[in-house]
Amino acid sequence: MTIPAYRTPALNRQVLLVERPPGIPQPEHFRLAERPLCGPGQGQALVRNLYLSVDPAQRGWAADLNNYAAAVPVGSVMRALGVGIVLESRLADLRAGDIVYGWTGWQDYALLGADEILSSVSDPQIPISAYAGVLGINGMTAWLALRRLGRPRPGETVLVSTAAGAVGSVVGQLARAEGCRALGLTGTDDKVSACVTRFGYAAAFNYRSADLWQSVDAEVGEGVDILFDNVGGDLLDMALRRMKVAGRVVQCGTASIASWHPAPTGLRNEREILSRRLSWNGFVIFDHKAEFSAAIHSLEALIRAGRLVYDEDIEHGIELAPDALRRLYAGANAGKKLIFIG
Amino acid sequence: MTIPAYRTPALNRQVLLVERPPGIPQPEHFRLAERPLCGPGQGQALVRNLYLSVDPAQRGWAADLNNYAAAVPVGSVMRALGVGIVLESRLADLRAGDIVYGWTGWQDYALLGADEILSSVSDPQIPISAYAGVLGINGMTAWLALRRLGRPRPGETVLVSTAAGAVGSVVGQLARAEGCRALGLTGTDDKVSACVTRFGYAAAFNYRSADLWQSVDAEVGEGVDILFDNVGGDLLDMALRRMKVAGRVVQCGTASIASWHPAPTGLRNEREILSRRLSWNGFVIFDHKAEFSAAIHSLEALIRAGRLVYDEDIEHGIELAPDALRRLYAGANAGKKLIFIG
Repeated sequence: MTIPAYRTPALNRQVLLVERPPGIPQPEHFRLAERPLCGPGQGQALVRNLYLSVDPAQRGWAADLNNYAAAVPVGSVMRALGVGIVLESRLADLRAGDIVYGWTGWQDYALLGADEILSSVSDPQIPISAYAGVLGINGMTAWLALRRLGRPRPGETVLVSTAAGAVGSVVGQLARAEGCRALGLTGTDDKVSACVTRFGYAAAFNYRSADLWQSVDAEVGEGVDILFDNVGGDLLDMALRRMKVAGRVVQCGTASIASWHPAPTGLRNEREILSRRLSWNGFVIFDHKAEFSAAIHSLEALIRAGRLVYDEDIEHGIELAPDALRRLYAGANAGKKLIFIG
Repeated sequence: MTIPAYRTPALNRQVLLVERPPGIPQPEHFRLAERPLCGPGQGQALVRNLYLSVDPAQRGWAADLNNYAAAVPVGSVMRALGVGIVLESRLADLRAGDIVYGWTGWQDYALLGADEILSSVSDPQIPISAYAGVLGINGMTAWLALRRLGRPRPGETVLVSTAAGAVGSVVGQLARAEGCRALGLTGTDDKVSACVTRFGYAAAFNYRSADLWQSVDAEVGEGVDILFDNVGGDLLDMALRRMKVAGRVVQCGTASIASWHPAPTGLRNEREILSRRLSWNGFVIFDHKAEFSAAIHSLEALIRAGRLVYDEDIEHGIELAPDALRRLYAGANAGKKLIFIG
């Protein structure tokens, strides 16, 4: 089945990566182009994209450094996740009209194979945009990384960096739901406030404040059981030195480090790992595809129950995507950053 | 029951810690003293020490830094493990004539409570000295840390630092027994040779050689599955960058770092942890007391079967202990360092 109104669109606007960014991607590393669009081949679906995601992980995908994924080739569409509606399907389990979340790229239309689709939008009571954020890799990362690597137990203290971000805002609420005491690090006083009033944190701290660790120490008490770190760098070093014996460190991102070439230096941490018997684990959501569906259903249930809130920061227009990524790294977003192009 | 010949010895020679070492302990931080000896109180055993252990961990015990054990108080007997014979017991499960391994300290006689005894010598076919090394914390560390944190699977590559040391020499043999390919880093060409001819390593490397990592890379192939690290520092940083995805790092020691005050700097490693999804865990043997007995019995069986060899470097005379510790850090030992005072 096809949706006639969308049949054979002639042109596809695409955001191309035209230069490899040495650090944080800037608008000049991208270019908007129009290219002719083909129909789906066997094993593909033609998808009209609705929401394009802007994610911290895109810096790594655009860079040519050792990473968990191959670099986006210069000259090709910028890799991105997104939510779109199927216009025409030559995939067995997908029909026109289905709404899917997957590797759409930053473009109007995508031809997706089965491997490029991560989930289908399953609950009509929840806004579609949520499937690109709190029910996408951000929320699933919070759910799976906290449970699998953090292993929270009631009464434990969980310290989260980028606590008001798309991942951190979910971690705070999940940690609280597990009976933990969540403490958040974030970059503005407004976000500090959102952490406490909206995202389940017992306390939150502006990491730009001069007396940051004095304030944290007053709340941390005997120490941190779980460090959920999205930033790396000095904040990580200082947080490691507050871990309890047998604490768990979840390394989910390294957003504070602008470039890994050359590799920056910092405090040596192996003595902390040894003497505190830490377990420090790296997390990449795409290792856990088999658990996506279960994670989404659990998160949907929390949303329906009013126990999981989320903020979105949505801009309109595909041409805004590159600058939105730049501003995401500057902390100038107020929730999950999405570009609406429907 | 008591052994008459040993009844009421009048004096006890003790090596006292007289100054807190800023880095590696030197002989001037210790002093030999004689003190009167009392008989055992209720819940104690009087033990005539035979072998005193010299361990890299003693630096941490002597230092006043955040560690897994309280610092040895200045002016008191240097904390050490050792093997001795019970002269008189006021402990329920111990009799005169029993040989025990425990917290003897660097002294001729020790009064040990039940908590200070780690094991009893159980196999008369094995030399007593072995219970202070390959059947003491060194061998148990190799056994428990490799199994619990390394989780070796047949065909995997295991990279070990201080590969010819009291722990590393056992790790190599155990890894090989598990069907792994063990690669060793050590500090002299003689030790490189011992790793390959005696300790089960498929290849070993002198970490002082200029082309070290070129040589290692030629053997590592696709990467390292398990890094068993006893040294920290640059060797750790370089090894981390050769880990396979889902690799395990066992942090068992940090022998290459002379002082943690102030904390030294080095390459930032959180990106390696994240992108390679490493699991980096600190190991302290004293967390695993419930498993000591099983570990010792497994290691005894390997020794009896001729599948586990060990070297000992034994000096005679309690006054030699401090300098033996200094030389241990210089790598100037040829096997497990023990002081015989029987």
